[in-house]
Amino acid sequence: MTNSRKSNRRQFFNSAGTGAAASLAGFALGSLPCFAAQATLVAAKKQRPLRLAMASYSLRKFNLDDALKITATVGLEAICLKSMHLPLESSDEEIAAAVAKVKAAGIVLYGGGVITMQNEEQVERAFEYAKAAGMTRIIGVPAPNMLPLVNDKVQQYDIAVCIHNHGPGDATYPTPDVAYERIKNLDPRVGLCHDVGHTTRAGKDPAAITRQCADRILDVHLKDVTEPTKEGHATPCGRGVIDLPALIQTFVEINYPGYLSFEYEEDPDNPLPGLAESVGYIRGIMDMLA
Amino acid sequence: MTNSRKSNRRQFFNSAGTGAAASLAGFALGSLPCFAAQATLVAAKKQRPLRLAMASYSLRKFNLDDALKITATVGLEAICLKSMHLPLESSDEEIAAAVAKVKAAGIVLYGGGVITMQNEEQVERAFEYAKAAGMTRIIGVPAPNMLPLVNDKVQQYDIAVCIHNHGPGDATYPTPDVAYERIKNLDPRVGLCHDVGHTTRAGKDPAAITRQCADRILDVHLKDVTEPTKEGHATPCGRGVIDLPALIQTFVEINYPGYLSFEYEEDPDNPLPGLAESVGYIRGIMDMLA
Repeated sequence: MTNSRKSNRRQFFNSAGTGAAASLAGFALGSLPCFAAQATLVAAKKQRPLRLAMASYSLRKFNLDDALKITATVGLEAICLKSMHLPLESSDEEIAAAVAKVKAAGIVLYGGGVITMQNEEQVERAFEYAKAAGMTRIIGVPAPNMLPLVNDKVQQYDIAVCIHNHGPGDATYPTPDVAYERIKNLDPRVGLCHDVGHTTRAGKDPAAITRQCADRILDVHLKDVTEPTKEGHATPCGRGVIDLPALIQTFVEINYPGYLSFEYEEDPDNPLPGLAESVGYIRGIMDMLA
Repeated sequence: MTNSRKSNRRQFFNSAGTGAAASLAGFALGSLPCFAAQATLVAAKKQRPLRLAMASYSLRKFNLDDALKITATVGLEAICLKSMHLPLESSDEEIAAAVAKVKAAGIVLYGGGVITMQNEEQVERAFEYAKAAGMTRIIGVPAPNMLPLVNDKVQQYDIAVCIHNHGPGDATYPTPDVAYERIKNLDPRVGLCHDVGHTTRAGKDPAAITRQCADRILDVHLKDVTEPTKEGHATPCGRGVIDLPALIQTFVEINYPGYLSFEYEEDPDNPLPGLAESVGYIRGIMDMLA
């Protein structure tokens, strides 16, 4: 146990126990199990070194209400909303209504995205949207020529932008180290969302990249993939090729300050079993580090 | 890393990939996700120190076909069938049909139970049933005055009997150490099924009891519970009070030869999310020991 790991301990605040999950009987969910309430009782006792969240793209076939119920069922404390759960063109009133739903579920709305920022209008809209929703982070893909504007906006709004890497098919930001070179002289709130699956699919070691870019990683898309090539696709954490024990230890050692957000892209019609297995797997690793 | 841990490494043989899970759309299951097949591809690469199985009581609201599909979905390699999935009074033909279904799902049928053995007829039936099904273990609750007969039968059939402890409400076998005192001079194939949840509910440390009874533990019911009292009930592994990292390390250190069988008693109508989270949690712990 290194000192850096110990100093990174945080209260694992599980606020999922609204009881809302027990009554759901919707499409492809069956009846959700009712352990969310008791999870609050017991999970709150545990000190874990990293905070876990949901990237709502995982739940893209569900509406916001059901997405929040699934998030609570797996006991995640926070969520980053993708546009199908909170459209970018929403009015302030619509945003306020969605924010109220997330809060009522006992979940922290920490970010939005992934949001494309190809022009000034998209950049400005992203910040207005995030501000209205009280988000601290925009997970985004700003075109390189938008980075000076993004740099101004993060200072104006005090909202971070986390550039998302999309792997071997992404000519601009395939891996975080490539994005890092473009932002290293900008405000520290211009950072990275490290998608560890896409880094692996690009043939790079996500733990090494995490160390290399440690000071700018402000969000993480956590997942496992079947192959370290562009053919690799999602699989529940622990079934794929990513050395997640080493990666989680790395996040602890760098005192990673943000959320590890599960983005589970497989089984969109019934993602709960794979998500639950993934969340359990990462908690098991964390409890070995405690 | 101790030598005993390393010497205990086994091939993690994941034989869940029959593809059967993908097409299920049944009661309370929604559409099962389709990662069982790819799990075979990738999980087979992993060396894990302990073998995981399903105690089919977890799936008591489902028929055998659906129980096998759920077992495959969470990637478990073996199963112990409770009587609702293979009635004790089954004919040899009925047993053969069930055995064929389990085999076709790529799953090992390693045991049956929990089976009550209150009289000679029940003891004899349990062994005939297990023999017909090719089981290597009977998980049972033999009355103390049946133990001499059980001792004869394990030698006659070369099938082990694992006495199941049922916690504070069980006057005969509340914890494995109590059962151990009754069997310690019998054939070594008269052993224990350590239900770590009931041991915890009885106020005892399941890791300490595992060490104390190490030479006779031949099966395990793995779970987590909410409280270390008789009021404690099931919760997904990692959400309760059992120190599962310490317990799993203990099973590795004693070179435990059997299966860790998930018995998840909560959410009988929709156990898959809690089971998946539990399986993931234990795999995460194991991968930290690898």
